[in-house]
Amino acid sequence: MKESLAKHYEWKGKLEVKSRVRTDSREALSLAYTPGVAAPCLEIAKDPALAYSLTRKWNTVAVVTDGSAVLGLGNIGALAGMPVMEGKCVLFSEFAGVDAVPVCLATQDADEIVATVKNIAPSYGGINLEDISAPRCFEIERRLKEMLDIPVFHDDQHGTAIVLAAALENALKVVGKQLSTARLVINGAGSAGIAIARFLLSMGADDIVVCDRAGILTEDGGVFNEAQTALAALTNPRGVNGALADAVKGADVFVGVSAKGVLSEDMVRSMAKDAIVFAMANPSPEIEPELAKRAGARIVATGRSDHPNQINNVLVFPGIFRGALDARARDINDEMQIAAAHALAGLVADDERGEECILPLAFDPRVAPTVAAAVKDAAVKSGVARS
Amino acid sequence: MKESLAKHYEWKGKLEVKSRVRTDSREALSLAYTPGVAAPCLEIAKDPALAYSLTRKWNTVAVVTDGSAVLGLGNIGALAGMPVMEGKCVLFSEFAGVDAVPVCLATQDADEIVATVKNIAPSYGGINLEDISAPRCFEIERRLKEMLDIPVFHDDQHGTAIVLAAALENALKVVGKQLSTARLVINGAGSAGIAIARFLLSMGADDIVVCDRAGILTEDGGVFNEAQTALAALTNPRGVNGALADAVKGADVFVGVSAKGVLSEDMVRSMAKDAIVFAMANPSPEIEPELAKRAGARIVATGRSDHPNQINNVLVFPGIFRGALDARARDINDEMQIAAAHALAGLVADDERGEECILPLAFDPRVAPTVAAAVKDAAVKSGVARS
Repeated sequence: MKESLAKHYEWKGKLEVKSRVRTDSREALSLAYTPGVAAPCLEIAKDPALAYSLTRKWNTVAVVTDGSAVLGLGNIGALAGMPVMEGKCVLFSEFAGVDAVPVCLATQDADEIVATVKNIAPSYGGINLEDISAPRCFEIERRLKEMLDIPVFHDDQHGTAIVLAAALENALKVVGKQLSTARLVINGAGSAGIAIARFLLSMGADDIVVCDRAGILTEDGGVFNEAQTALAALTNPRGVNGALADAVKGADVFVGVSAKGVLSEDMVRSMAKDAIVFAMANPSPEIEPELAKRAGARIVATGRSDHPNQINNVLVFPGIFRGALDARARDINDEMQIAAAHALAGLVADDERGEECILPLAFDPRVAPTVAAAVKDAAVKSGVARS
Repeated sequence: MKESLAKHYEWKGKLEVKSRVRTDSREALSLAYTPGVAAPCLEIAKDPALAYSLTRKWNTVAVVTDGSAVLGLGNIGALAGMPVMEGKCVLFSEFAGVDAVPVCLATQDADEIVATVKNIAPSYGGINLEDISAPRCFEIERRLKEMLDIPVFHDDQHGTAIVLAAALENALKVVGKQLSTARLVINGAGSAGIAIARFLLSMGADDIVVCDRAGILTEDGGVFNEAQTALAALTNPRGVNGALADAVKGADVFVGVSAKGVLSEDMVRSMAKDAIVFAMANPSPEIEPELAKRAGARIVATGRSDHPNQINNVLVFPGIFRGALDARARDINDEMQIAAAHALAGLVADDERGEECILPLAFDPRVAPTVAAAVKDAAVKSGVARS
């Protein structure tokens, strides 16, 4: 932490905006700016789609936050979240050649956020929503997706869900189980937990039990918010009641997007044989990997880079936006997200796959192009591509 | 025009966003992004002013348009204006090392524009309003200046006024006249004309007559808008009535921000000896320079790069924002703008100054740093600097 702070003082910002054209002569200036620039303006006025060919819109993404849920730090405000947004933009650039810019909002009101993003959208080929707290993030994303003709993607929800689904696909192969018959428990019904549950259902999972602090999500549980109650209707097919300890009994998979230390060794011992434990609380997982292993888990993954099997959004969001931008897509739909998960999982070859190898490494140069190609292809096939 | 269009298709956008940090190892990533990035976030949460040290806010400007008055093309919409905004950002980068990004708005409603810019302001060290039509531009700028603690500057108004004031300062020296006693006529009472009139008054001009299509602005003239009527109260001290031909009789200076060909040779002949004619209509001036000269004008300037004495905003806006950013200024106030005009005028040495040399060239490398230093100094002296 101290070293990072010192580096941030040294860097004074992690991004820069550079010109791609020359302006060192009267002639150069008259091509890039007045009077020549009137020509591309008039072309776009006639056909707005040409903005994708005549400006940087085709490659530019806004990383938008209201700072209400920054990392594990909570509601620190958008300005304080800017180092994270810059970092995200750095990863967009470095991993996928996307021009991404931070947009830190001076409001946390859902209506104002929607209106603001709608109003700034023309400059961008896509919108990455970041670190916006639940349940507002659901409404904001839904309304913007309906309103805009460019992709809107809340990475904390869907990026996490896609990487996790890829990891789970390979983990289940290692232990010889099927997603459609496995018993899954998700602990933490915030934005990430809800998105993971919905995404795993869309990929074919059937038996998911979701827990939050108040216990297992049930349809008649009055303590849950609207998004949680809606999810309850889609999950918990066996009608399990109680708390996390009840949910995990006999489960094949534990997915934690909750808090440090909430999964005990006893709980892991109560899970099915060859249990899979994805403990992704940041910075400290729901259970330390060595404790989970000792209690019988066969495959353990966390969000941490100092353990094997790191579930890291950087494996997906650069490639998913690269693919969406390459397709000039109107949306990042389910088909594109499922394609991203399968493409990512497929990068682990049969002879590499194992208990400590269920995902490629974050720095594997094949990741972003492979995900991007699959996403672009899915965009075309599902009819949301412009090119 | 054709060549510029071809170039724009080749360029596919004139800007790019680059990372300033490495992300090629787990260690590098943990410093620039999670988990290390939590440290600068927490520092900014404690002290928001540290955003200027720990993020790129200190060097980043939003170039905001609603596309309602793009170049001389009129209301072509913000998306169609994006090539201009990118060009402006290119100039910010190339001339002053400012990171500037286009923000093309999907609204032309003044209230929505104000709310949107207010909401996105935290990421930026300054806001450059661009190509927003009068009279909305006055209200939008005024309200944003009141609301925000970063500079808001409508370049079409103030950039133009500052460059023109610098040119006029030198032109008056060449002909041996004083601003305070000269008779000035401004033709065109849109955003630029009004800003020029107000700025010249703040610099010491006393006798300005402003004309619009409906004739000379007078206090009791019912055909004028609010901004024009307000300006009428500050101008026309001799109570001249009539049209442009009446205004220019005996005038020392004509400033045109109006339309092609509206100043006739006869009108120039009716001006005072050693007349100064600044015919800045784009792309075709109020009078062709050779005709103005033939009719007796001693000094002629236009907005065109193919004549001497080009009055070009690029002489000011990069330096004025560079200076404001270097001062971490809360505002770009009158003092800073007057300092910019004097600094720009001062770059023409006594032995260079002449009828065809009243401004430095757009590519003179001294311009932006000299303007910036004067603006920063004025920011400090006038109490709007943070550093």
